[in-house]
Amino acid sequence: MTEPTGVTANPLRAPQDRRLPRIAGPSGLVIFGVTGDLSRKKLMPAVYDLANRGLLPPGFSLVGFARREWADEDFAQVVHDAVKEHARTPFREEVWQQLSEGFRFVQGDFDDDVAFDRLRQTIEALDKERGTGGNFAFYLSVPPKFFPNVVQQLQEHGLSDSSGHGWRRAVIEKPFGHDLKSAQELNKIVHRVFEPNEVFRIDHYLGKETVQNILALRFGNTIFEPLWNRSYVDHVQITMAEDIGIGGRAGYYDGIGAARDVIQNHLLQLLALTAMEEPTSFHPKALVGEKLKVLNAVRLPDDLSKHTVRGQYAAGWQGGEQVPGYLEEEGIDPNSTTDTYAAIKLEINTRRWAGVPFYLRTGKRLGRRVTEIAVVFQRAPHSPFDAYDTSELGQNALVIRVQPDEGVTIRFGSKVPGTSMEIRDVTMDFAYGESFTESSPEAYERLILDVLLGDANLFPRHQEVERSWEILDPIERHWAKNGRPESYTSGTWGPKAADEMLARDGRSWRRP
Amino acid sequence: MTEPTGVTANPLRAPQDRRLPRIAGPSGLVIFGVTGDLSRKKLMPAVYDLANRGLLPPGFSLVGFARREWADEDFAQVVHDAVKEHARTPFREEVWQQLSEGFRFVQGDFDDDVAFDRLRQTIEALDKERGTGGNFAFYLSVPPKFFPNVVQQLQEHGLSDSSGHGWRRAVIEKPFGHDLKSAQELNKIVHRVFEPNEVFRIDHYLGKETVQNILALRFGNTIFEPLWNRSYVDHVQITMAEDIGIGGRAGYYDGIGAARDVIQNHLLQLLALTAMEEPTSFHPKALVGEKLKVLNAVRLPDDLSKHTVRGQYAAGWQGGEQVPGYLEEEGIDPNSTTDTYAAIKLEINTRRWAGVPFYLRTGKRLGRRVTEIAVVFQRAPHSPFDAYDTSELGQNALVIRVQPDEGVTIRFGSKVPGTSMEIRDVTMDFAYGESFTESSPEAYERLILDVLLGDANLFPRHQEVERSWEILDPIERHWAKNGRPESYTSGTWGPKAADEMLARDGRSWRRP
Repeated sequence: MTEPTGVTANPLRAPQDRRLPRIAGPSGLVIFGVTGDLSRKKLMPAVYDLANRGLLPPGFSLVGFARREWADEDFAQVVHDAVKEHARTPFREEVWQQLSEGFRFVQGDFDDDVAFDRLRQTIEALDKERGTGGNFAFYLSVPPKFFPNVVQQLQEHGLSDSSGHGWRRAVIEKPFGHDLKSAQELNKIVHRVFEPNEVFRIDHYLGKETVQNILALRFGNTIFEPLWNRSYVDHVQITMAEDIGIGGRAGYYDGIGAARDVIQNHLLQLLALTAMEEPTSFHPKALVGEKLKVLNAVRLPDDLSKHTVRGQYAAGWQGGEQVPGYLEEEGIDPNSTTDTYAAIKLEINTRRWAGVPFYLRTGKRLGRRVTEIAVVFQRAPHSPFDAYDTSELGQNALVIRVQPDEGVTIRFGSKVPGTSMEIRDVTMDFAYGESFTESSPEAYERLILDVLLGDANLFPRHQEVERSWEILDPIERHWAKNGRPESYTSGTWGPKAADEMLARDGRSWRRP
Repeated sequence: MTEPTGVTANPLRAPQDRRLPRIAGPSGLVIFGVTGDLSRKKLMPAVYDLANRGLLPPGFSLVGFARREWADEDFAQVVHDAVKEHARTPFREEVWQQLSEGFRFVQGDFDDDVAFDRLRQTIEALDKERGTGGNFAFYLSVPPKFFPNVVQQLQEHGLSDSSGHGWRRAVIEKPFGHDLKSAQELNKIVHRVFEPNEVFRIDHYLGKETVQNILALRFGNTIFEPLWNRSYVDHVQITMAEDIGIGGRAGYYDGIGAARDVIQNHLLQLLALTAMEEPTSFHPKALVGEKLKVLNAVRLPDDLSKHTVRGQYAAGWQGGEQVPGYLEEEGIDPNSTTDTYAAIKLEINTRRWAGVPFYLRTGKRLGRRVTEIAVVFQRAPHSPFDAYDTSELGQNALVIRVQPDEGVTIRFGSKVPGTSMEIRDVTMDFAYGESFTESSPEAYERLILDVLLGDANLFPRHQEVERSWEILDPIERHWAKNGRPESYTSGTWGPKAADEMLARDGRSWRRP
């Protein structure tokens, strides 16, 4: 996670080398699908913010590839507008000037050989004009069905081959398939062209500060790790709740659903970081190894009908507005059985976690937008206090708030002021925003920089992706065979069955 | 600590009995030395606040005993003024009316037999007029040299004898002696007249909410106790710092000093509560038993000249004002060797704490008024992070803030926002004042109520007092033989030797 490497990481480097700032060496970025939303809202602003922070090399170059009939100037104008609207850091004319001199646009289809030839010429010209040294990352911000096309074109036009002219890397956006089989096929196609260490799969959650802070919290401190096991933890709840509906994503979302969209990647990655053993270092191999160990130890419950729940939002009120149900959304099949809410219970078959359930849930149109990991502790094994004095005392909990209001909360019992020994829950709080003057980089800033540095720590490896599908596939198959998702009113916390699922275990979901 | 008992505690009572409110039964309070500061600033207001909160019986009676030529009305006026000025709760005329009907004043010297006869008659009359049921507590708010006198007079005039007419209890203010021998003598005198369970020694620190919260924190929660031992704790710092000088207390303070005034009682009690094992219940015997086990296990360092420090404040600046040195204070012998600062290192010879130093310090004219217990944890046994990334990371700490700003703080390491894995100390905080709408009762409210309820949990037993002197005596003897205390400038954090004392152990004092 902290390897400030140019091309390859050297785990044997002396610690003092770490004082080198993490600045990308000579390089450029090619974005396929550069006219899309992700590109305008996240990628272009992130590139500018990195430049503004001085983390890009002077000759850094950005190449857009799309079907539009744009000249370089048109492309520059689009980036300009995107930066003005979405960049995190202030607009500085001199940064913009230098950066935009490296903008190029290549017009073409993904099966257009001439266009890929032009792309190669463009890159070669940039190497000469701006000293990019042949180091280019190809960002596939395109629907997965185009992945094979693009990857093959890169190979056929000699663009993927790093031998002799710097490094070449592929950046792939999710979804990485929609089940194990499709993910394996996709990985096979990509790995035919790129080496495993040249492929960077984006899970933008891993770029978030608070997610990286899981590792800092657990392994940079003394006081958390002794509690982080089955002796003290009752269960863990990992929640990603959205208050919005599917918006304009009907085409992508329908048939995919909440579990594939969020649990398979974001939530299983959060689970892995929460549950894994300490890696011996933050060398990518060590970190991936520990995450994989956890994912491999995940066990599904025997009775999926009792321990998994899916739901679909119905019309309701949210933020003072009436909102339509999923089946009424534009572009959605009115008979769709796609889940917009999913909750599953997993166990981890390790010495540390045996018997501790991990409850994962995600959904759209829920009560509030919040992502958090809540480690809920067992009650004290013995209470010397009178039962009446502790009747309002809950279970201790440590909550990592991923978003919004990034930070950490601990819930514990404290004496209520007064002449008895009544003990009640209170919280103590650490807020990222209040504790640091440094503002948090956007996830995409971090991740694009890591791609340019060749630092793979925050990118799931293909084994992780495939193992995650292996976990989810039986659940999806079970759901496909068993009727419709339960409907829940927009603005509530999901279907009743989800509450019953935890109630059967004598627990309840947090209302964050 | 939570026994809501009238006369005797019944540890076998069913839990539901605890729903009874802790309200004192028929009773009265006699204050000797009622014209003194403590009486006016603390005791009288506390009695009123208890009445205002409905925790005193309707016929509650307050008898003042002093030399002044006061009528009952004069006494009532003094209480009235004291309540108006110092009470915590609002003045309510109807509460005042009912309460003040039970005010009586007895004029006399402590060796005046006639006066003690009048006191007996007054009490007997109150029993008849106000139904106090013969239940009286005698609060000795007088210099210790008068203790023997008063106690003997109570016995000789049949006032200490509870047989046949309710309960009789003695409340004693510190100092309980000035060394082991004098404390033993004092205890012998008191116990000749009162049974051990009839004697209530006031250590007003134990009446503070945050001090009682030590027990709630440790034993009402799951997450602290696993860390509370030599495997994780590096050391403990217990600090009581005052910013004021000796004020008008020269006569009492000179020759006594900081260690006897604060460490022997307050700080050793805080140490006992911090370090003790979990009591099986909060029955007084169980609690005292655990505290005594800790005190008995305290071991002094072999070389007292290296591990104890005393200081004396010199002139300096504090709060924007120039303040005199201790030797220039009115009423102080200019050659006095009295310590106004004391720091000692103790170890506790138990399986839980062996090898963990407890550093205790107290002083006047220090940088800030603060009392706190800081449990400082060891560094993580292994750090997978690069040394450079954790160079600004300190040790984890849990700080119980006793006063002011009552609450709990945890210091831990968190990732610094940015593209590296730098980890830096942050704090999370729980503030009593913000978390509860209930305002905290004054320590004396709680303690006087406990006396009337016969609840001895917050009062040190004579064994604790004697053992605490046994701990301090060798240090005082060592100091008496070894020159003068080191001078320190008012407004600083004490003598240089105190910093050196911790530096030799590779540690440093907190600057709270």
